[in-house]
Amino acid sequence: MVILLKRQHDKKQLEHLMNWLKNMNLEIHASEGSMQTILGLVGDTTVVDIDLLKALDIVEDVKRIQEPYKNANRKFHPKDTVVNVGDVKIGGGNFVMIAGPCSVESEEQICCVAESVKKSGAKILRGGAFKPRTSPYAFQGMREKGLELLSEAKQKTGLPIVTEIMDLSQLHLFEDVDVIQVGARNMQNFELLKELGKINKPILLKRGLASTLQEFIMSAEYIMAGGNENVILCERGIRTYEPSTRNTLDLSAIPMLKNMTHLPIIVDPSHATGIARVVKPMALAAVAAGADGLIIEVHNDPPHAACDGAQSLTPEAFDNLAKAIEVIRPMACTYDQGVCQ
Amino acid sequence: MVILLKRQHDKKQLEHLMNWLKNMNLEIHASEGSMQTILGLVGDTTVVDIDLLKALDIVEDVKRIQEPYKNANRKFHPKDTVVNVGDVKIGGGNFVMIAGPCSVESEEQICCVAESVKKSGAKILRGGAFKPRTSPYAFQGMREKGLELLSEAKQKTGLPIVTEIMDLSQLHLFEDVDVIQVGARNMQNFELLKELGKINKPILLKRGLASTLQEFIMSAEYIMAGGNENVILCERGIRTYEPSTRNTLDLSAIPMLKNMTHLPIIVDPSHATGIARVVKPMALAAVAAGADGLIIEVHNDPPHAACDGAQSLTPEAFDNLAKAIEVIRPMACTYDQGVCQ
Amino acid sequence: MVILLKRQHDKKQLEHLMNWLKNMNLEIHASEGSMQTILGLVGDTTVVDIDLLKALDIVEDVKRIQEPYKNANRKFHPKDTVVNVGDVKIGGGNFVMIAGPCSVESEEQICCVAESVKKSGAKILRGGAFKPRTSPYAFQGMREKGLELLSEAKQKTGLPIVTEIMDLSQLHLFEDVDVIQVGARNMQNFELLKELGKINKPILLKRGLASTLQEFIMSAEYIMAGGNENVILCERGIRTYEPSTRNTLDLSAIPMLKNMTHLPIIVDPSHATGIARVVKPMALAAVAAGADGLIIEVHNDPPHAACDGAQSLTPEAFDNLAKAIEVIRPMACTYDQGVCQ
Amino acid sequence: MVILLKRQHDKKQLEHLMNWLKNMNLEIHASEGSMQTILGLVGDTTVVDIDLLKALDIVEDVKRIQEPYKNANRKFHPKDTVVNVGDVKIGGGNFVMIAGPCSVESEEQICCVAESVKKSGAKILRGGAFKPRTSPYAFQGMREKGLELLSEAKQKTGLPIVTEIMDLSQLHLFEDVDVIQVGARNMQNFELLKELGKINKPILLKRGLASTLQEFIMSAEYIMAGGNENVILCERGIRTYEPSTRNTLDLSAIPMLKNMTHLPIIVDPSHATGIARVVKPMALAAVAAGADGLIIEVHNDPPHAACDGAQSLTPEAFDNLAKAIEVIRPMACTYDQGVCQ
Repeated sequence: MVILLKRQHDKKQLEHLMNWLKNMNLEIHASEGSMQTILGLVGDTTVVDIDLLKALDIVEDVKRIQEPYKNANRKFHPKDTVVNVGDVKIGGGNFVMIAGPCSVESEEQICCVAESVKKSGAKILRGGAFKPRTSPYAFQGMREKGLELLSEAKQKTGLPIVTEIMDLSQLHLFEDVDVIQVGARNMQNFELLKELGKINKPILLKRGLASTLQEFIMSAEYIMAGGNENVILCERGIRTYEPSTRNTLDLSAIPMLKNMTHLPIIVDPSHATGIARVVKPMALAAVAAGADGLIIEVHNDPPHAACDGAQSLTPEAFDNLAKAIEVIRPMACTYDQGVCQ
Repeated sequence: MVILLKRQHDKKQLEHLMNWLKNMNLEIHASEGSMQTILGLVGDTTVVDIDLLKALDIVEDVKRIQEPYKNANRKFHPKDTVVNVGDVKIGGGNFVMIAGPCSVESEEQICCVAESVKKSGAKILRGGAFKPRTSPYAFQGMREKGLELLSEAKQKTGLPIVTEIMDLSQLHLFEDVDVIQVGARNMQNFELLKELGKINKPILLKRGLASTLQEFIMSAEYIMAGGNENVILCERGIRTYEPSTRNTLDLSAIPMLKNMTHLPIIVDPSHATGIARVVKPMALAAVAAGADGLIIEVHNDPPHAACDGAQSLTPEAFDNLAKAIEVIRPMACTYDQGVCQ
Repeated sequence: MVILLKRQHDKKQLEHLMNWLKNMNLEIHASEGSMQTILGLVGDTTVVDIDLLKALDIVEDVKRIQEPYKNANRKFHPKDTVVNVGDVKIGGGNFVMIAGPCSVESEEQICCVAESVKKSGAKILRGGAFKPRTSPYAFQGMREKGLELLSEAKQKTGLPIVTEIMDLSQLHLFEDVDVIQVGARNMQNFELLKELGKINKPILLKRGLASTLQEFIMSAEYIMAGGNENVILCERGIRTYEPSTRNTLDLSAIPMLKNMTHLPIIVDPSHATGIARVVKPMALAAVAAGADGLIIEVHNDPPHAACDGAQSLTPEAFDNLAKAIEVIRPMACTYDQGVCQ
Repeated sequence: MVILLKRQHDKKQLEHLMNWLKNMNLEIHASEGSMQTILGLVGDTTVVDIDLLKALDIVEDVKRIQEPYKNANRKFHPKDTVVNVGDVKIGGGNFVMIAGPCSVESEEQICCVAESVKKSGAKILRGGAFKPRTSPYAFQGMREKGLELLSEAKQKTGLPIVTEIMDLSQLHLFEDVDVIQVGARNMQNFELLKELGKINKPILLKRGLASTLQEFIMSAEYIMAGGNENVILCERGIRTYEPSTRNTLDLSAIPMLKNMTHLPIIVDPSHATGIARVVKPMALAAVAAGADGLIIEVHNDPPHAACDGAQSLTPEAFDNLAKAIEVIRPMACTYDQGVCQ
């Protein structure tokens, strides 16, 4: 951390600041120039509150040089984390395909899709029971009943299941769920993250639609600080000015995150783009860039899906995609300690 | 709502679509051209799922023409909503100044700030008990104890209080709170919004930092759909590419929202900019543009604030600001049925 | 400027770097910690190429602490620049109202609007002769003929004129033009900026629609580096994800720029919002925040304007606005050495 | 195009509007509902000015349904355009690798890099002679001399060359240049685009850093409207709030543009990310998504490059990348009439 002092600064206030910093076990290196004095702080600066420093009369600016996260930091854990979901491994060279409908709609629908995506090579089943919808008048998901139907599909196919939690009060219903998804809108629902840090189920954490990569990792850090290290990061598009796709898929997040953290990174091209015909090119691109997995929306009858039909693949289109991915996977980027080889 | 059909479309599928739309009590007006066929839907289209329409084989594009909100819609409720907080009125020409520290830190601090801002003309006291912080290692607020201290300050000064709820499970603690704040990060915490729709306390809803104005109103609609019409909207800056301010305060949200909805709109220049010296110009600008109120961070000792010191005003600076606002208020924009006069 | 070295760095390469930096007359202050070594550079770092430093094997990150601009920098020129346009002064407490149609369309139109805005208090006439239009099929302006008509209007009313240059090759046509406007799309047309630095007419430089404030000032610096210090900055909205207004007017640019630079800052609420009924609230807000002027689109017959009719005020609406501004001006923020009082 | 009328609209004004539209040879289909009247316009709406319509008293909103571009429109030209650069073909299944340094620095440098990238499989040499730099104090390119050195490298290696034009006045110097690049900052320099429409050299048009895909195509349309159909589109990253990469590479632009237009689309991962170690994953991703080519920065000595060293590959790294691309190319997305198969 670097503190830039104002040109005219009170010596006593400076002394006061230096003592306060030393009490936090930070070494201070002052660079006094004719124009500017800079204080370099060396040590564990994750505990220092930047806003507080900026409020000081004698301070002009403060820049963080070191990352404010520890548990998720690649520097302190050079080896890739591998998350285990039953027998399925994610990360550290293990690629996973997750697929299923946006919403669970009926036993027939979820089981039919589950069997079909399993045949095509999916290893985990996704399906929404609690659905975050912009409009209070839109379908809100089957809720408890949806979770039950997911469990049935799990029993029938043997596929582990991942589904979204929308509120802490729902947590007791997620016992049979294998991976708990935290949606983009809840990425900074800190109370939820803290509780999920206390359990040891894998958490699929989606990037908030206006979150920086650092904030994204900080939310993973919330979970990990509680003791749960099984976090899977998911890039799902960010909000930009471009109106033609629902969001802008930020694939450079893959090499950037690989460098910043040891956690596995998967990509959701369905929600990112919102357009079925764009899912395949973005899925192949994500694989080529070295993603640890994909999560894809598949519906047996997209035009009659209860939500997000426009972005769902048919089972045939998914099978075509899965085959293409199998072929391209061996040519994809591989990372060694976060650096693409 | 307008549906653009693909150039080559199956007549049977079209018939199927028309029947489905008619069953939703929508009138359909088809415009068949040599190049393009357009279906205009007339009626209550708030219930139509755009994504589902877009998924149809015969559909090229769908555009919503009417607003997807009803209760919050100015068109159906031309008169301004006035929210009552005890004796304090907000909206419909009633301006309110809300002030207080980012976090409650001690009895002395909150009572001292409360008395000082009251003297300067603030009508409601703000103060954070539960604090959403990007880092798990940062101060998370005094929580229950913070709420107690707010109640004490309320008793001593007679000022009603507003403070943020971070999770549904905290709701029972908010009995003595006069206005419940939903923070920017929770603007689309739909489970929380639904519950807040069932109580009848005023809700201060902050705009999410990547929310469109329409999404913002849709979140108000969630609360109102449950029966609670006491919603105060708060513009607090949106995320843009500009790095010099924390967020970009979108003051055009005031005239835009005034036209879209009848709810009162206040502005938070402290969080929007994150810089104390920018608060005054932005506060004056918000008032000039016709905001129904301001929410301002004030701390007796900003350099030692537990959070966000960099954006807090001293009591003296707040007093100076309050005086300037009193002078400028009579010259501010006034709105008649959402249109600046 | 601060250089963060990689944890394992070659001592010889470091020595090489230190020598290179010293040759640029920079003092180097090294802070060696157990975890991290930081080099603080003190001196004139405007000449240092950050990208080059970042490319070095031993460097992990580089942060600029000092501003990369000199001529435009408030630190080195604490007093406000006042730009003179004939008898009209802009900046340093002098407020200017600029008004006129988006495009010059006919002698009758431009003279009629010019006389009308003059009566309402405008001091400079605006009008587009060369028009940047997104579509090649849209009206491109009257070009040379438009400039002639502007000159006529100037002669008739005595109002100095401001109009946009779109290419260097047009410069010889601008002799009778009092202020040359560089449009948002040309803010980083560096060849144009360099040439405009060699003349001594005032330049009205509009912020690019995705430019940071620092880039904005750097473009002013291009002009000033050539010797022309008569630069007027114009905030005209930035591109964000919000679709309801054409752009998002960033009024915090006023206090931020006041602090960074001594140049005058005006605001264009017409182009920023693109909606006539939003112009007045944003104009009042800009004045309240301390803008040095406004540039407003006025058309005698907005529904038949050749371009941008949706955002033009009628002469009556402009007169109403001008009166409101006269009343609010004395209550607006004032700045002392870039800090709002 | 769809026009939404205000609820209370004057019948005479409506008649006036209808006549005006009919005079533009547009068919009008009115859908009159109890709540809302919608006019659907069928015919060539590229000539209609949306802003003008929006300014009408009786109009509430206008939505464009059809694309405002013709020459570049896939709908009217289903077959892929193939651009020929000497013997090199781009588009329609033909992939091209373009490589070279950011700036031409010396004969030795450009020839050395040219020979090296040719050996690795590059078919066109890139190199900047005129350099757009944010700072007036940064290296501005070798200019005329740089063009001469590029010509020498072309003669020695037989590689056609592509380099950026920054102003119309430079055009006469570009005779020996095979492909003229229009940089991101000049994407809406309409005077330049018009002139480039009159020559028949291929134009490499880079997406502006805040341009929508539609605006991007409209700029291509400017060139094509003048008669030059040899336009190559280049995605090079857009500006978002994410600070860790220079820009955010929008790879979904590939499938989106493929659908909208028949022009070839290449990708520049070097400028998009600004970080050498991110170039390879993004290059592979672009290829997988079906890009028609790549443009990559390669420098023999990145730490001593005159500009943008941080994002340049060494010749060895480029060779490694070129080999990886050769392997992955056959597995990439292929498009049929703009739809990924």
